Amino acid sequence: MTAETKFVRFDSFTVETGVTLTQVDIAYQTYGTLNADRSNAILATHAFSGDAHAAGISPETGKPGWWDDMIGPGKGFDTDKYFVICANVLGGCKGTAGPSSINPATNQPYAMTFPGITIRDMVRLQKQLIDHLGIERLLAVAGGSMGGMQALEWAVSFPDSVAACLPIAATARHSAMQIAFNEVGRQAVMADPDWQSGDYYGKKPPARGLAVARMVGHITYMSDDSMREKFGRRMREKTTPSFDSSVDFEIESYLRYRGSQFVDRFDANSYLYITKAMDYFDLSAGYSSLAMSLERAKCRFLVISFTSDWLYPSYQSLEIVNALRSRNRDVAYCELPSTYGHDAFLVEVDEQTELVRGFLHQTFKEINRR
Amino acid sequence: MTAETKFVRFDSFTVETGVTLTQVDIAYQTYGTLNADRSNAILATHAFSGDAHAAGISPETGKPGWWDDMIGPGKGFDTDKYFVICANVLGGCKGTAGPSSINPATNQPYAMTFPGITIRDMVRLQKQLIDHLGIERLLAVAGGSMGGMQALEWAVSFPDSVAACLPIAATARHSAMQIAFNEVGRQAVMADPDWQSGDYYGKKPPARGLAVARMVGHITYMSDDSMREKFGRRMREKTTPSFDSSVDFEIESYLRYRGSQFVDRFDANSYLYITKAMDYFDLSAGYSSLAMSLERAKCRFLVISFTSDWLYPSYQSLEIVNALRSRNRDVAYCELPSTYGHDAFLVEVDEQTELVRGFLHQTFKEINRR
Repeated sequence: MTAETKFVRFDSFTVETGVTLTQVDIAYQTYGTLNADRSNAILATHAFSGDAHAAGISPETGKPGWWDDMIGPGKGFDTDKYFVICANVLGGCKGTAGPSSINPATNQPYAMTFPGITIRDMVRLQKQLIDHLGIERLLAVAGGSMGGMQALEWAVSFPDSVAACLPIAATARHSAMQIAFNEVGRQAVMADPDWQSGDYYGKKPPARGLAVARMVGHITYMSDDSMREKFGRRMREKTTPSFDSSVDFEIESYLRYRGSQFVDRFDANSYLYITKAMDYFDLSAGYSSLAMSLERAKCRFLVISFTSDWLYPSYQSLEIVNALRSRNRDVAYCELPSTYGHDAFLVEVDEQTELVRGFLHQTFKEINRR
Repeated sequence: MTAETKFVRFDSFTVETGVTLTQVDIAYQTYGTLNADRSNAILATHAFSGDAHAAGISPETGKPGWWDDMIGPGKGFDTDKYFVICANVLGGCKGTAGPSSINPATNQPYAMTFPGITIRDMVRLQKQLIDHLGIERLLAVAGGSMGGMQALEWAVSFPDSVAACLPIAATARHSAMQIAFNEVGRQAVMADPDWQSGDYYGKKPPARGLAVARMVGHITYMSDDSMREKFGRRMREKTTPSFDSSVDFEIESYLRYRGSQFVDRFDANSYLYITKAMDYFDLSAGYSSLAMSLERAKCRFLVISFTSDWLYPSYQSLEIVNALRSRNRDVAYCELPSTYGHDAFLVEVDEQTELVRGFLHQTFKEINRR
């Protein structure tokens, strides 16, 4: 299964703060076939550093998509049955409009003149794409981490346009600790003199700051256990730890590698905009409570969390579940055992596959019965 | 109680890697009075960013010491009964020899020519100070976090010189996760172009990198709960979160403040040397097991951990306790309930006071009975 990135350009898009962007591109991929009555479409929403390439093999990089284990023929999101769409988020750097895009008014990259964006803006742009594809109602919106926030926002913002919502390892709003980790990453980027207040395009990017930011991120995506299992106190050139700065702990080399690798594929200003959108996201904003906001939703919910995920801990998923139950919404909740921490939503494929397959099957049946 | 910093200069000190330093200063403070038979001396060992000013009010800054809640007349470490000593660690920047000290051979700061140091080196220099003060055996060595590592090292390296050991919120060796967080801090410092490979003395210090490093540290010292209680999603200028970059979450302002404040009081190269010493610390190194290393110890142990401390989790204290028990050593263990995370060892004063007071009293009685 090869993956082709397609683009749609909208003449204009007005963000929540009121700023109107013109010539707004959105990059997306699709897998499987849309059925005749357009009732089998699923939107997969990506996490912070993801992109439209969710499944299949990229013809450019030869790499599988970020959720390739879950999306494909016979997989959890079975492309023999369903038509799966994934789009790069607004504010991103993989084909959808973001700070690195060219501002048609100036012919220069927006950089920090790009307007502040929200999770709701991301979802509203996705809605325009879904409309463009002629899909009236999505069978499901599903995603992990920030992808789960988008799924929740879909359920509340467009209750008539989604039949099922699958927020995985997600939250209805960031805690102080989640904001804190994002803020450290932003400060690391902005502390790099190469950041130049965001005007680094065509020059040296703030590579060192962005790498440090990504290192912090990677620690929070793992767990104490998974780091112990994968790295422990092993060193790269020695078998016994001893004080000698020429040798490194494997965990250090791993983090440095992941940090430097990230710099080649991600835009530092997108890092700032998207983490801010995550921090500001609060599904209950404008309502008297989370339950009141979720009361708007009409879809079924499958909420999943993972035992060792300390970045998006299970209690945040339970908050969503309890709010839904208090409004008599149709919600199933599973806390899956895992040692992988937040990464589990990408890694724990077997149990998620079973859960997702059954849930989608049931939803599809109910829709077509009505 | 005012606190006066004293200094001893040793002609030379050879670190574990074999390098000999000359004219090695050690800065220390003492509280209370040494008794006639010199049997009431307690060494308080400080954590990563601490210094010799453990108790009383500094005449320079007017500020209380880092463990002032625990050390003083009638307090846990009761200076009406005991003589408490606290020294700045080797590699530090508050009066004891470290990378910012002048190398007598060059008349320039050592910077990165300072030799790599270990927790054992810190303890060996403290032992020279204790010898200098004419104290043959310490009643106790007590400290939290890196201070607890030093306490453990004392018990194993100088079994005849310490009657009691109190490692609090500590570990016998850093996990991959602990190394990972330290490595992020080091990378943040070294990513700052002002770091200049450590040769920044007399110039602009790597303030931005050091501030980012400290921000990461502060997150790990707190807990999800304590951050929620203290900051939640509150904003500084608004009551409701909304997307507007002119307002900040309080947690962001707090972290930025603590980061910038740290830069004024800490040396970036000391940050690198001391975190490395923590990461390389392994009490079992050179022994077939942790139990075999702790078998050398002859003292009593009081091991304390805190429920919400995810940076130095209770299982690490239990590892120490189990190893001691397997060798029939005298060990008491308490896991104290707290929401303060790793900071609890500085904050949870009441319960620690009771535990420490009783334990020291019993130890003192046993010593004087023999």
